[in-house]
Amino acid sequence: MTVLVLTSEEDVTADMVIRHLAAAGTPVLRLDPADCPGRVDFAARITAGGGVVGHIATELGRVDFADIRSIWVRRPGPPGRYADVQPEWVALETERAFYGALRALDVPWMNPPEAVAGTQYKVAQLVTARRVGMTVPASLFATIPEEAAQFARAAEDLIVKSVSGRHPENPPLTFPTSRVEAGADFSGVSHSATCLQHEVRAVAHLRLTMVGTRLFPCFITPPAGVLDWRFEPTENCQWEIKSIPPELRKSALEFMAAYGLVYGALDFAITEEGEFYFLEVNAKGQFGFVELQTRAPISEAIATWLTEPRSQLSCWG
Amino acid sequence: MTVLVLTSEEDVTADMVIRHLAAAGTPVLRLDPADCPGRVDFAARITAGGGVVGHIATELGRVDFADIRSIWVRRPGPPGRYADVQPEWVALETERAFYGALRALDVPWMNPPEAVAGTQYKVAQLVTARRVGMTVPASLFATIPEEAAQFARAAEDLIVKSVSGRHPENPPLTFPTSRVEAGADFSGVSHSATCLQHEVRAVAHLRLTMVGTRLFPCFITPPAGVLDWRFEPTENCQWEIKSIPPELRKSALEFMAAYGLVYGALDFAITEEGEFYFLEVNAKGQFGFVELQTRAPISEAIATWLTEPRSQLSCWG
Repeated sequence: MTVLVLTSEEDVTADMVIRHLAAAGTPVLRLDPADCPGRVDFAARITAGGGVVGHIATELGRVDFADIRSIWVRRPGPPGRYADVQPEWVALETERAFYGALRALDVPWMNPPEAVAGTQYKVAQLVTARRVGMTVPASLFATIPEEAAQFARAAEDLIVKSVSGRHPENPPLTFPTSRVEAGADFSGVSHSATCLQHEVRAVAHLRLTMVGTRLFPCFITPPAGVLDWRFEPTENCQWEIKSIPPELRKSALEFMAAYGLVYGALDFAITEEGEFYFLEVNAKGQFGFVELQTRAPISEAIATWLTEPRSQLSCWG
Repeated sequence: MTVLVLTSEEDVTADMVIRHLAAAGTPVLRLDPADCPGRVDFAARITAGGGVVGHIATELGRVDFADIRSIWVRRPGPPGRYADVQPEWVALETERAFYGALRALDVPWMNPPEAVAGTQYKVAQLVTARRVGMTVPASLFATIPEEAAQFARAAEDLIVKSVSGRHPENPPLTFPTSRVEAGADFSGVSHSATCLQHEVRAVAHLRLTMVGTRLFPCFITPPAGVLDWRFEPTENCQWEIKSIPPELRKSALEFMAAYGLVYGALDFAITEEGEFYFLEVNAKGQFGFVELQTRAPISEAIATWLTEPRSQLSCWG
């Protein structure tokens, strides 16, 4: 049976996983839904009995719906790339039909689409993290300047970050997480919802990559004073896989279960006292750079999950 | 405690429900998130203990998060209506922060946002309906002309409808459900995903409005030959609340539970033999016209659910 991989052509990280699937002899169909219709096409028939019968056809191959073993969603583009007439309409109709057919199949997804949608709200992430026993930084989400000023007065050190977490480089609308100076003017908060946090005095960071129930805890030490290691050249940081406290492992698994995620990249700030502050989860977070820096076998774990979606609890490193 | 109503100013159907809430003395705050920031503002603070503390302020009033009893999402606009600088960015950041704060509260929603998102895929709706025991029409979703032609050959009568179900009037991109003539040319199917169905020879239609576990089954008889009663003037149709078979009631409740919906408008076509064919659910479907035509107390049931979200199973009519 075939693993269906939905991602863009330029996604090289997917190749890391596909190499393991190929080595194990598992058939793979990789495609970008952006190419539908045109270079990717499909037909899904609902029978009176209620099943879905049909197939997807691409230039590289064809797969019957009944032959799909699992679905891996990496970085697909929106359908309708080649639509020249009413492109928005084609994109909407094709997205609903293509993903609707896949959603109707009884196969495991990494990740289920609803689970990913649920993680897009950082306020709720922090509350969920707290509920499963993690420590979270005091945070404010607001459009009211006086509330921001009051929150700032209660902070030793204050940072501002994007609410949505959209990457600052594309489009260049946002900024990396930044420190806010004492006595700052908060009147601009009335123009857009703003996220302020009490800064966690971190001596190191944890990027916890989770694949099913396998945990890859990577400790990252950036140069002193760097607030957001993700915007630092990798060679400037130290990377090390180390074990994490069993309570944190348990909380992380409960967090994933609460969202219905089977893949996630969780970020924590670690204080001198060894406290882990949960910052956020990215359900589509990159893993290639962690594997390259530490040799943690993440891509192999993903390939294994896609082949046998019921992997056992384990902690590498 | 307050019922929070998220909808546009021009939504008159919301007034029907708010009237019942007011009569019962239940405080209501009605607002459109489109007015945030500017005429609607908020502050949500995550405490170290993990709770959400804060409030929403509008020109009409203010509510503390701790005082929100339930949330009714009707027809809200996207945040950021008044943003003059970087409006897309403001809309995204504010949507994530505002709805994130509300999602972090432990209160019932009509409907939960993830539940609504899940219903947007008609292919999956049909398969879910079949799984809970409903009858569904043979349907094809495809971008492949030969598959469409083959499906057409197996049909006595064939119809084409929008996949997404977007309303045809706004924007005028789509069409009402239409019959397809024998011998039609299907080459256009390659331009966009298309939904074809074997026509159910309906003598009447059922609009089943569900509020929690209360069912309002409205039988609609349009003039002979009319395929889609929703585009027919209401006075041309007969409207009648009647009971439905217990198996259908059971299936409808299971369908709602499968999606996590507490409100839904389900449409069925009824054949001469009395068979109910499930066509679709609309999680944001209108109910005002059913209440006006039949006096079914739907708005009262919604008000009751928003006040006491654990209503008992019953069937009106």
